[in-house]
Amino acid sequence: MMKWWGWGSPDYEFRMDNKPHLWPWIAGTLRLEKVRMAKPVRREEIRLPPPIKNEAFLRAVSGSLKSEQWTSDEDQRLLHSYGKSYPDLFLVRQGRVRRAPDLVVYPERHSDVELIVREAHRHGVCLVPFGGGTNIVGGVNPSETSKMVVTLNMARMNRVLSLDHESNLAVIEAGALGPKLEKDLQAKGYSLGHFPDSFEVSSLGGWVATRSAGMQSDAYGKIEHMVVALKMVTPSGTISTRAIPASSAGPDINHVMIGSEGVLGVITECTMRVHPAPPVKDYRGILFPSFAKGLAAIHESVMSPEHPNLIRLQDEWETELAFNMKVPKTGFVGFIERQFKKILKARGYSRPAIMIAGIEGDAAHVKRMRSLTAKLWKKHGGFDLGTSVGATWAQDKYNLPYLRDYVMDRSCMVDVAETSTVWSNVLTLHKKVTEGMKARFASEGRPGFVGCHLSHTYKTGACLYFTYACEQEPGRELEQYYGFKRFITELFVKNGAALTHHHAVGTEHRPWMKEELSEAGLAALQALKTGLDPQGICNPGKLIPESDAFKGWVQEVGGNGAAPRAKETAGK
Amino acid sequence: MMKWWGWGSPDYEFRMDNKPHLWPWIAGTLRLEKVRMAKPVRREEIRLPPPIKNEAFLRAVSGSLKSEQWTSDEDQRLLHSYGKSYPDLFLVRQGRVRRAPDLVVYPERHSDVELIVREAHRHGVCLVPFGGGTNIVGGVNPSETSKMVVTLNMARMNRVLSLDHESNLAVIEAGALGPKLEKDLQAKGYSLGHFPDSFEVSSLGGWVATRSAGMQSDAYGKIEHMVVALKMVTPSGTISTRAIPASSAGPDINHVMIGSEGVLGVITECTMRVHPAPPVKDYRGILFPSFAKGLAAIHESVMSPEHPNLIRLQDEWETELAFNMKVPKTGFVGFIERQFKKILKARGYSRPAIMIAGIEGDAAHVKRMRSLTAKLWKKHGGFDLGTSVGATWAQDKYNLPYLRDYVMDRSCMVDVAETSTVWSNVLTLHKKVTEGMKARFASEGRPGFVGCHLSHTYKTGACLYFTYACEQEPGRELEQYYGFKRFITELFVKNGAALTHHHAVGTEHRPWMKEELSEAGLAALQALKTGLDPQGICNPGKLIPESDAFKGWVQEVGGNGAAPRAKETAGK
Repeated sequence: MMKWWGWGSPDYEFRMDNKPHLWPWIAGTLRLEKVRMAKPVRREEIRLPPPIKNEAFLRAVSGSLKSEQWTSDEDQRLLHSYGKSYPDLFLVRQGRVRRAPDLVVYPERHSDVELIVREAHRHGVCLVPFGGGTNIVGGVNPSETSKMVVTLNMARMNRVLSLDHESNLAVIEAGALGPKLEKDLQAKGYSLGHFPDSFEVSSLGGWVATRSAGMQSDAYGKIEHMVVALKMVTPSGTISTRAIPASSAGPDINHVMIGSEGVLGVITECTMRVHPAPPVKDYRGILFPSFAKGLAAIHESVMSPEHPNLIRLQDEWETELAFNMKVPKTGFVGFIERQFKKILKARGYSRPAIMIAGIEGDAAHVKRMRSLTAKLWKKHGGFDLGTSVGATWAQDKYNLPYLRDYVMDRSCMVDVAETSTVWSNVLTLHKKVTEGMKARFASEGRPGFVGCHLSHTYKTGACLYFTYACEQEPGRELEQYYGFKRFITELFVKNGAALTHHHAVGTEHRPWMKEELSEAGLAALQALKTGLDPQGICNPGKLIPESDAFKGWVQEVGGNGAAPRAKETAGK
Repeated sequence: MMKWWGWGSPDYEFRMDNKPHLWPWIAGTLRLEKVRMAKPVRREEIRLPPPIKNEAFLRAVSGSLKSEQWTSDEDQRLLHSYGKSYPDLFLVRQGRVRRAPDLVVYPERHSDVELIVREAHRHGVCLVPFGGGTNIVGGVNPSETSKMVVTLNMARMNRVLSLDHESNLAVIEAGALGPKLEKDLQAKGYSLGHFPDSFEVSSLGGWVATRSAGMQSDAYGKIEHMVVALKMVTPSGTISTRAIPASSAGPDINHVMIGSEGVLGVITECTMRVHPAPPVKDYRGILFPSFAKGLAAIHESVMSPEHPNLIRLQDEWETELAFNMKVPKTGFVGFIERQFKKILKARGYSRPAIMIAGIEGDAAHVKRMRSLTAKLWKKHGGFDLGTSVGATWAQDKYNLPYLRDYVMDRSCMVDVAETSTVWSNVLTLHKKVTEGMKARFASEGRPGFVGCHLSHTYKTGACLYFTYACEQEPGRELEQYYGFKRFITELFVKNGAALTHHHAVGTEHRPWMKEELSEAGLAALQALKTGLDPQGICNPGKLIPESDAFKGWVQEVGGNGAAPRAKETAGK
């Protein structure tokens, strides 16, 4: 399973030894005068309180589930206590766990989930669905303290149940993690084509429940565009939509389930649009004289009948970060650097922006698209860095979250925030957010980094994905974090940009849901909640705001001084 | 405005005088031994009962609306009493009107609608939103007989409010009819690209409320794929979503409003994805040796990276109908016939299937796509009939509904039913429905026609659109109609096909909503209704079934013998 103190597998850590420029560059950018080490506590220092037991519920389910399908083992409870947000990791690294689930259950089939939801509804037990556990908005953290909380780890429901080649359809269990799902489909010549940054450790059900976007969403759509039918177990019964290509039978009930983050029920089975696995791939790096020039090129590409599968344009600051991640003499940055120096000399580029463009398909399609896009990039001042840059990027593309652990070891705050906005606002928003964040770093007296990349495009606009970091404020780390979180989110919401493009709502984005959906839009969501989950047992505290939820959440985590360690608080 | 007794403008009737083969072919196919004429009653024979008046509501709105914004004129009430379904027209042609609205209001701005909905909610008045009035599933027919019913004719809210060229976005008022909306957009170089069969007389708000599909949905998506944001006035306030390209902030509230058929509120404003109007168009006819061969060609096209804007493949029976609609010596069928005779001779095609393929874009794109598709059609036995067939088709494409009036004048039942299914089921479904309907015609002793065309395609499947007709059963016309309606709908639903692909639910499809959405899926819809419209004033009786709604509806219309004329029943 995963690390309890950080991202991904315990077998993997971010390698800094082969990137001699990276830490000096980070330390310089954040002006860390002296690095304060802040390693996680030892596992043994974390003690969870004994679990709350609802005996009637346990009796009702224990007859039908095998004994290896549930556990209240402390390691398992700890791993299911939180997701992978910065405050999640900050707290657990200090040994502070607000609330652990009282039981972890591993359903093996749809009927197991039906049993659990039915009995939970009957006996007043709260349920939290759990896929890969990579949620960074508080979406899997148990919060209910007066009732038993059961986390449903969906990992054993991971099969591709059927594949209809002629119709490009696969029925897949919701617990399948990215690699297993792609491997099974690709063994039959197909691909789902959904590759979020968390791909290696996140699940199909999680993608659907959070309206995830993958790196190739430009070609295949966000996850909601790939869903054809779903099964979701709610306290009012199983919603099961039909595998039909299109319908006009009322509001699309799939879209009630997609993005529901467990608050309406547990997604068990997804009928997904798949496609034949593309035989040829061409990933390459293109260097633009500026982020603005790169954007102009991408906008023209989006407006034309065809567009690459993947486009990722880093702004000047993220490009600088990329350059400093170089492994000397080899691979990605070695090559960039040599080319880059030539360009700098010849053309006077001073603050370039790097783009990765990926094209997939049959040989003829890739060849034609390469030629079309080559002309387009060139027209906007793009310089082709070749496929080795693309290959290195593809190889490293899932590794960046591991860097966060390294940086957090050194007492730095680091977070990401993504949004989307219409084309006419992309550059304006980028400027407002970048300048706003820099001003805030300055006003707080802690120099910081803010960089951005465009990660997904649409005919109407694009996703901007910001990364920011600065040194932690000792003793006020959570207040500092929530200050920045609120600040950047309000920059988005007040400047015509989405509350979130693909990280979902959880607890972190609840305070803006009324602004995002309008009061009556939120009433629609609340009506669904009340109608389908009248007892409020489904992932309580997520997605749907209570009054002034943000304030509540900050108070709950208690800031730094106030919040005691887990062993003193969780449970009852 | 429109005909009260039939389709479209009173200035236009289907021309039969220049199509000498058509009526003899219809009469022969339906084996009409003697044509019974059944012309509509004279307008003067229809008398509506006096309207129900809710004085408190009238007082509340009359101060803020201009006097020319409402009417209880009998002609207007009559025109807003029904849509354009076969039973709608059958009844009104006999002068039977079940229920007319008590008042027709013409809102001119969003705030007018807010006022009306608020006061209707306060005073217990029912509301029916009305766009072009072309609904064929009972969606605009008032049904509540104990309360005042107000129909909101949205025609005056028809402006393009803004256009963001860079972002391909237009904000358009919901009452805009197709021609006005396209004219306004095209004046600025843009197009929405939504062309349903009812285009000339239906509205944007109606399209969104019914999840409409246009002829070019293969290129631009169904209407739900073009919606970026909406404003909808509900009794719980105005839901207003934001114009952002993509989001993961919970379930997509746009999809609560899309397809809501007025039962949750009144859509007033739509932010739509538009595109630059394509400069070059190539529409042509292709003749395939059979429907199956044409399907194989289309499937291969759908699987490739690019696909035409429009594909419409008629099966062998609809192709025969098309051939018999010929205007001798000129245009569409004249040309087809000459080519067709050559082919028949040379290749022994006996029961061909005609396809219309439309490609739009800039010259280079159209040229390339023409060449790509030409090879593809040929590979599957397609014979290119050239662009004159396409041009004639494009010219006549909105005229077919007028033929229904002509046929109904001659005591024939004629109806359409559309569905969608996955590719692996398309041919099977086509066979089951065609054979099933023929067997039913035979068992009832009235020879009938059933034909089909594939009208929209997806990566996962396609829409099949059936047309069927036979002589009316004298004195039992409505029982006959509902017998066929139930029969063909159950063929769809029980054989893996959608309840409806783009005609929506209204009253006609309510009986199958539980089967379509599952019981818990329907509970989700009911939860939205209860939450947003707690008094049930919004288009009551539509979309959401009561128990055994179908039976109820048949009983309500009363069959033939039972139902008295309008003047004796409507109102109270």
